[in-house]
Amino acid sequence: VTVVGDPRDARIALLRRGDRRALARAITLIESTRGADRAEAEALLTRIAAEGAPQATLRIGMSGVPGVGKSTFVERFGLAAIARGHRVAVLAVDPSSKRTGGAILGDKTRMAGLARAPEAFVRPTAAGATLGGVARRTGEAIELVEAAGFDLVLVETVGVGQSETAVASLTDLFILLLPPAGGDELQGIKKGVVEIADILLVNKADGDLAAAAARAVADYTAAINLLRPRVAWWRPPVLPVSAATGAGVDAVFEEIARWRQTAEAAGARLARRREQARERLWDELTAGLVARFADDPANAARLEAALAEVAAGTASPAVAARRLLDGIGANLR
Amino acid sequence: VTVVGDPRDARIALLRRGDRRALARAITLIESTRGADRAEAEALLTRIAAEGAPQATLRIGMSGVPGVGKSTFVERFGLAAIARGHRVAVLAVDPSSKRTGGAILGDKTRMAGLARAPEAFVRPTAAGATLGGVARRTGEAIELVEAAGFDLVLVETVGVGQSETAVASLTDLFILLLPPAGGDELQGIKKGVVEIADILLVNKADGDLAAAAARAVADYTAAINLLRPRVAWWRPPVLPVSAATGAGVDAVFEEIARWRQTAEAAGARLARRREQARERLWDELTAGLVARFADDPANAARLEAALAEVAAGTASPAVAARRLLDGIGANLR
Repeated sequence: VTVVGDPRDARIALLRRGDRRALARAITLIESTRGADRAEAEALLTRIAAEGAPQATLRIGMSGVPGVGKSTFVERFGLAAIARGHRVAVLAVDPSSKRTGGAILGDKTRMAGLARAPEAFVRPTAAGATLGGVARRTGEAIELVEAAGFDLVLVETVGVGQSETAVASLTDLFILLLPPAGGDELQGIKKGVVEIADILLVNKADGDLAAAAARAVADYTAAINLLRPRVAWWRPPVLPVSAATGAGVDAVFEEIARWRQTAEAAGARLARRREQARERLWDELTAGLVARFADDPANAARLEAALAEVAAGTASPAVAARRLLDGIGANLR
Repeated sequence: VTVVGDPRDARIALLRRGDRRALARAITLIESTRGADRAEAEALLTRIAAEGAPQATLRIGMSGVPGVGKSTFVERFGLAAIARGHRVAVLAVDPSSKRTGGAILGDKTRMAGLARAPEAFVRPTAAGATLGGVARRTGEAIELVEAAGFDLVLVETVGVGQSETAVASLTDLFILLLPPAGGDELQGIKKGVVEIADILLVNKADGDLAAAAARAVADYTAAINLLRPRVAWWRPPVLPVSAATGAGVDAVFEEIARWRQTAEAAGARLARRREQARERLWDELTAGLVARFADDPANAARLEAALAEVAAGTASPAVAARRLLDGIGANLR
């Protein structure tokens, strides 16, 4: 139902047509922490959800250690996806904003070809917030880019374990990009991240490193076989690729298609999305409950006293928390 | 104030004297999820907190990839600490319970010498709960072992990033045990974990691996210098050790003493503990608010409806959470 003359309708219509400026403005809106912006963002998200699910989309999480060639791969993969008829959005979750001040995608020139393509939308990361906050807003950015007609969403991160988990909880499948190193060096592998990967790619399988990459594929395959699979219906394959030459990229698309077919047959892709949506609701509810408690002036003095007590060591944190909660009484409904 | 004849007083007196069975039972009590046990656990923690802080204690977090020789090092380090007059408690935070079913310290025979020493207390990990729950209870286990007179608490973990962060948030300083590998293999290093380490140890600096360990020390030192230090007043040293021969263990104690002196001079050790206690209160409060909301029958139907809506994609999670929170009204105090 559109009301003639409401400027919001014009903006949503632009977004629906895939207008990249309208989309960029909408993402900026959902990233804003101002109360008025937040209300408008939620109104926008409600409109989009009410208009129904977009075409079938695929959400791919992607990670890899610094130096592995992730930007080059994303550019190569994104352009190949466009050639296959997809419209591609690239988003980022940046865990480093809290500690090291790093940036992902801070410089769009790292993916200049993709950023220029009319069938692509590349979004530099939001900075400054906590990882939890960034991840919550990234979930909404995915809803927006899909409403704008982008059917292949790449969410990339470079991280410390937590961010990969956050990205995996927002995407359908997770691709891990690995360096062409193997053998003893595998002991440095981030086991927790390997465990959430659905497809592993050994990059730089070209020139002098081709042999090393082939060995790494064999080593990682052996290592993967020692891990309990994330799901019963899929054993993560390990493939060599070269972001520089494009070798192996076709095979990546074939594996993605095979994953999708297998996941759909198992009823797993939509089940995973439903579970992810529920988890996001819990995260939002948790953050909201804490904010509501802390923002209530009636709690402020008691909270301060409890914080002082636990800091002094005269109360155990769980005990102090229990007393604060008992103070709420039966009113929390 | 003790009441003659209250069996709780006898149990607390036993615990205070360092009785290991009484201590083990008390930790089992705080790990229990039964409501009656929880109430008794909190009464115990309250008594202990009210009786005042124990002697000056040191809480050391420790981690290392599988195969690095962590158990051997903990045993060697623990026995050396006892020889220096400390009473040593070893606790574990196990992140793998959620996914891989692994166990730390599951077999006390891995540290048979330490487990037998009267001046030591070795506690196998609790299994089954979420990482957050395990970490919350580990904070309380630290309070208990300190009340029992153990002045050096080692909290060990082997993990996927999150568990090291959880352990770092419970301890004064964090020691990372590294394999004797260097050079290109450093790119597999878990940067996030290195960033929270206060002291890095390259193990297996003996026999054939002595030269490789020396190179690794140099490589890690160079790598550390590229990272932003966790705190301004301490640059993490990298030392070679041999858990097998005991070489380098004295130097570890010297570095710990130097860290402690530097931290005390900067007023940082107690400041960090105060901040950690506040964070634990927030965690407990958060978990309690969510449980109270979810357990209230008045919310159950609305929560179910919201979960169904977001799973179906007809509502964005933040919007659904906002509606649930608005339903609470102004009663949350």
